[in-house]
Amino acid sequence: MVRIAVVGAGYWGPNLIRNFHSMKSSSLRFVCDQDRAALEKLKPGFPEAQFVTDFGVVLSSPEVDAVVVATQPASHLALAKEALERGKHVFVEKPLTLSAEDAQVLVDTSARTKKVLMVGHLLRYHPAVKLLKEYIDAGELGEVLYAYSTRVNLGKVRQDENALWNFAPHDLAVILHLIGAKPVSVSAVGQCYVKPGVEDVVFLTILFEGNRMAHVHVSWLDPHKIRKLTVVGRKKMAVFDDMEASEKIRVYDKGVDYSPDYKSYAEAVSLRVGDILIPRVDMKEPLRVECEHFVECVEKGTTPLTDGRDGLAVVRVLEAAQTSLSQSGTLVAVP
Amino acid sequence: MVRIAVVGAGYWGPNLIRNFHSMKSSSLRFVCDQDRAALEKLKPGFPEAQFVTDFGVVLSSPEVDAVVVATQPASHLALAKEALERGKHVFVEKPLTLSAEDAQVLVDTSARTKKVLMVGHLLRYHPAVKLLKEYIDAGELGEVLYAYSTRVNLGKVRQDENALWNFAPHDLAVILHLIGAKPVSVSAVGQCYVKPGVEDVVFLTILFEGNRMAHVHVSWLDPHKIRKLTVVGRKKMAVFDDMEASEKIRVYDKGVDYSPDYKSYAEAVSLRVGDILIPRVDMKEPLRVECEHFVECVEKGTTPLTDGRDGLAVVRVLEAAQTSLSQSGTLVAVP
Amino acid sequence: MVRIAVVGAGYWGPNLIRNFHSMKSSSLRFVCDQDRAALEKLKPGFPEAQFVTDFGVVLSSPEVDAVVVATQPASHLALAKEALERGKHVFVEKPLTLSAEDAQVLVDTSARTKKVLMVGHLLRYHPAVKLLKEYIDAGELGEVLYAYSTRVNLGKVRQDENALWNFAPHDLAVILHLIGAKPVSVSAVGQCYVKPGVEDVVFLTILFEGNRMAHVHVSWLDPHKIRKLTVVGRKKMAVFDDMEASEKIRVYDKGVDYSPDYKSYAEAVSLRVGDILIPRVDMKEPLRVECEHFVECVEKGTTPLTDGRDGLAVVRVLEAAQTSLSQSGTLVAVP
Amino acid sequence: MVRIAVVGAGYWGPNLIRNFHSMKSSSLRFVCDQDRAALEKLKPGFPEAQFVTDFGVVLSSPEVDAVVVATQPASHLALAKEALERGKHVFVEKPLTLSAEDAQVLVDTSARTKKVLMVGHLLRYHPAVKLLKEYIDAGELGEVLYAYSTRVNLGKVRQDENALWNFAPHDLAVILHLIGAKPVSVSAVGQCYVKPGVEDVVFLTILFEGNRMAHVHVSWLDPHKIRKLTVVGRKKMAVFDDMEASEKIRVYDKGVDYSPDYKSYAEAVSLRVGDILIPRVDMKEPLRVECEHFVECVEKGTTPLTDGRDGLAVVRVLEAAQTSLSQSGTLVAVP
Repeated sequence: MVRIAVVGAGYWGPNLIRNFHSMKSSSLRFVCDQDRAALEKLKPGFPEAQFVTDFGVVLSSPEVDAVVVATQPASHLALAKEALERGKHVFVEKPLTLSAEDAQVLVDTSARTKKVLMVGHLLRYHPAVKLLKEYIDAGELGEVLYAYSTRVNLGKVRQDENALWNFAPHDLAVILHLIGAKPVSVSAVGQCYVKPGVEDVVFLTILFEGNRMAHVHVSWLDPHKIRKLTVVGRKKMAVFDDMEASEKIRVYDKGVDYSPDYKSYAEAVSLRVGDILIPRVDMKEPLRVECEHFVECVEKGTTPLTDGRDGLAVVRVLEAAQTSLSQSGTLVAVP
Repeated sequence: MVRIAVVGAGYWGPNLIRNFHSMKSSSLRFVCDQDRAALEKLKPGFPEAQFVTDFGVVLSSPEVDAVVVATQPASHLALAKEALERGKHVFVEKPLTLSAEDAQVLVDTSARTKKVLMVGHLLRYHPAVKLLKEYIDAGELGEVLYAYSTRVNLGKVRQDENALWNFAPHDLAVILHLIGAKPVSVSAVGQCYVKPGVEDVVFLTILFEGNRMAHVHVSWLDPHKIRKLTVVGRKKMAVFDDMEASEKIRVYDKGVDYSPDYKSYAEAVSLRVGDILIPRVDMKEPLRVECEHFVECVEKGTTPLTDGRDGLAVVRVLEAAQTSLSQSGTLVAVP
Repeated sequence: MVRIAVVGAGYWGPNLIRNFHSMKSSSLRFVCDQDRAALEKLKPGFPEAQFVTDFGVVLSSPEVDAVVVATQPASHLALAKEALERGKHVFVEKPLTLSAEDAQVLVDTSARTKKVLMVGHLLRYHPAVKLLKEYIDAGELGEVLYAYSTRVNLGKVRQDENALWNFAPHDLAVILHLIGAKPVSVSAVGQCYVKPGVEDVVFLTILFEGNRMAHVHVSWLDPHKIRKLTVVGRKKMAVFDDMEASEKIRVYDKGVDYSPDYKSYAEAVSLRVGDILIPRVDMKEPLRVECEHFVECVEKGTTPLTDGRDGLAVVRVLEAAQTSLSQSGTLVAVP
Repeated sequence: MVRIAVVGAGYWGPNLIRNFHSMKSSSLRFVCDQDRAALEKLKPGFPEAQFVTDFGVVLSSPEVDAVVVATQPASHLALAKEALERGKHVFVEKPLTLSAEDAQVLVDTSARTKKVLMVGHLLRYHPAVKLLKEYIDAGELGEVLYAYSTRVNLGKVRQDENALWNFAPHDLAVILHLIGAKPVSVSAVGQCYVKPGVEDVVFLTILFEGNRMAHVHVSWLDPHKIRKLTVVGRKKMAVFDDMEASEKIRVYDKGVDYSPDYKSYAEAVSLRVGDILIPRVDMKEPLRVECEHFVECVEKGTTPLTDGRDGLAVVRVLEAAQTSLSQSGTLVAVP
């Protein structure tokens, strides 16, 4: 039984609270937030937990094995670091931090304290992403050439986090996982249409080693609601559409074939358009899978699928993208 | 009755030949191509025309009022220029030329010879684009903020023209028309997966004066067939989906509203999600409309909707994009 | 504050229990079921209620204002009648009863005891159905000619209720409401593919006064999940698709126009294909609206939208349809 | 080289004329119609054929091997019979005739004269239908339980043929082919909303031997354009959607499984929801395949896939359905 404290009871926090409350392998001990109203609203539903405004109380409690950080990203570093130093395992919502330097600090602290550090890259726990990765690892798609992702809708305009930092961590976490190559450079272009200084529409291109490429389009100023990722491999192509109720993945037996003996270029290349497979995906709520994975890692002392280094890798791309964004799309190297 | 010679009987040429043949306002006099086999194949269907391999014969004929150039882009400049100089009106397939310098030469030649120069920006003659432009001009969408377009499929891999020059002129012609602001800079990233040196996937971002923005995604290595343009305005948003059989346009009464009196930022901004309208679009084959427009301009001596300057504007963006593409996405100014 | 007892804690009961528990205007006092295991499973979530197996206890309690009957349809008559007789208001899940005679008994008992009798025709509380009805009443569609509804999926095979009685009450309740004419006769054809004696696929046609017509297709042996109703009016046509996440209703400005002065029939008739409107539907959970409506009727002593007579009207059609079904589709009059 | 005369140059005739004109295995010799204007309009495109108003001329010509009848159904019997008697092979558009008795006459005449009689059940030549039949024959779907088809749109209102006779032959021809059992009885309900006496909306149910069942919904007064057939088998289910540009068929690995050892009914039955396959269908224009098949049958003296008996089988169902239709849906036996 892992004893949990959740810090941050705002927009996303309650979802984490609900899960750690209802899971049999965990026990919710604390909910911490500076906003008393938010605490009061949640209190009646979780009689087993203490609701506090002082994070110190949480850290001092010997009843807390793990701290779940779901506050504004700017506070992730301080809260997570302190929790690790005080011997707690830590789960941090995405993005892990607002700079690669900060993310490195957390990775190092976790290594030093030998406590679990996990980042909330939710989509990595989506059964459809798991299946896509299995297809790729089994060579089903052939060499992965490029991927592109669209995450747009008309939605809540954030005041202090732009669409890049708010939406793109999801896509980047999945794309880095599936492409399986080192990102080399990025170019990001965006605009702030609603709130000055906060980009609400961003187009981001990432170049990887081995000529691979990815593109991410995020916006909260769009007529459609789209959550869609396309992966183009040499042999087959796959699409993951999370807005589909049940047909989450399509595998297209489509591609370009080469015949070895040919006289001209045109003869050598032919298009292959074959069957489309919509595999059954056994849906489990990704958030639940994620929370259970964290608890399991804490219990067994194993490394999470999305550990600190995974969080760091995503932040490195975001940081470079932010630099490019401020320079109207200049090409920026990913360290 | 405008007497037409079509130069180029390859991939697209036959479509033009068929239209100028069947229209009552034009008469097909010559088809010219260096490929005799292509000529032989077409000959039986067009008994009224002469099929020749020598462009000089076409130019010398007093029976030709206008020359339609549907050859490889590299030859557009020479063929179109010569035809204008010899007193012919000229229609050139997109892209007008392969450099802005060349396009300028054609524009100047047309001005000097007082002959019509029209470029085949086909989508400008699509009834749905016309309707979108009317909505925008009537203020229906409010200020246009950004637009993005996707033109992808698994398709013919060209040997000497990349996806940028082959596909993007369509999107750029429409976007420049609808955005109605000057393009300032572009950034383009792409890869050559099938044929070395020929980009088959390109992501292109364009920044305009007044913080407007556009994005174009072209690929002939994609599982979907998508032909879709989204225009986001301050008041409403519109989508033009050319793969829809009858529901070509959707107008979303969606947007962000501002209330004038407010205490906090959050209070000031609210989302508006209203009705969706799918207006009836009276479809006419865009290619037919385009051909008829050319003939009409020749007959009346009027300036085409897509004249040489329109072609030049698109080539300027393409040229800057190609520079960016060769530099892995560096930001490049549009002159 | 209306004090509620729910009888029947099986498949659907828990949804009602949850709503009457969480609403401010009602208070859950009893949950009654003969299945102890079902009671035990629910108990922890509703500490305010008593969980009993004896319906007599519920009836005798002065703490109960209203009884909600969510048991097998065969028991509806007895339970609802007894509750009304004992001075309770009653909500009965659809179908109200298994025969028109029984339904009449309940209607009469409710009239005599002056207690509310409401039937759970859930879709009548769906905002999209409400909007459709408003369009029709405002003359927007013109005279309603016919309607057809499809409710199919691969789903739970019931052991003792066929697809007609289980699925079709939803469609019939809506169709009777929208068509607004008296049903005259029905014809129903179906088959029992999974369980002998239990039709899993049924096609039902209903003829109304004034040459109106409706068709209902229900199945729980179908590859698609469809929940779709089409209403064809003289002026416009409307479709309600409940599987659409947000675009629930489409109004097609389509129809047949007649010109008054004509020489031939063909000249007189022309097709009109105009805009399509997808109106914004303000979604509220229909079950919640339904439960709140029942409580409000009890409190104010008003007649429910879906009162006993509404339930009776649907049962009359179902009963005639069942007769037709047993005779392989013979036409049967609706009394 | 089969020499063809086409009788009937109205709505559908020109499509047949165009095909027999352009095929290499046939030669168009005559086009016959009583409407001179229709003849004049077509004449210029087919210089090789004679355009006549007198059918006698066609029959007397030794230059005609086969007669293609595309006139109003009421004239099919007389024209086809006479042509067969005069030693011509005959292709008749659907429906073969307006009564089973008439159809039998044609079948008998064809047998006696030993001339080919083929009916234009176009969809039988659709590659997707062929593939569906192969799946069924290979046992892929298991026993076929039922099928239902929807053929609706807002379309041309016929003056003297109702939606049953005009649309349903397509669906019936396919369904009889796929179900592979004898139709026993039918029930049809419809209304005449636009033109008195001409049903524009019809719902038709067919019962087959072995408890199989089918349903056909036809209408030319509908907001959607739907061309869709669903086939439910014991093992799998398949859908053929002809409005899909490329994804014509879907095979759902869905069904109800039975476990042999069980204590209760509920335990014995479980739902299986597996992968969906969208097989590649090699599209060939069905009309072209049909015309080539007719020519081939004439040349080789083989029996067409859709011979007179096939036409008769469909007319038998239509005739019974028409009787049911006139009796508001009474169950009518199929002889």
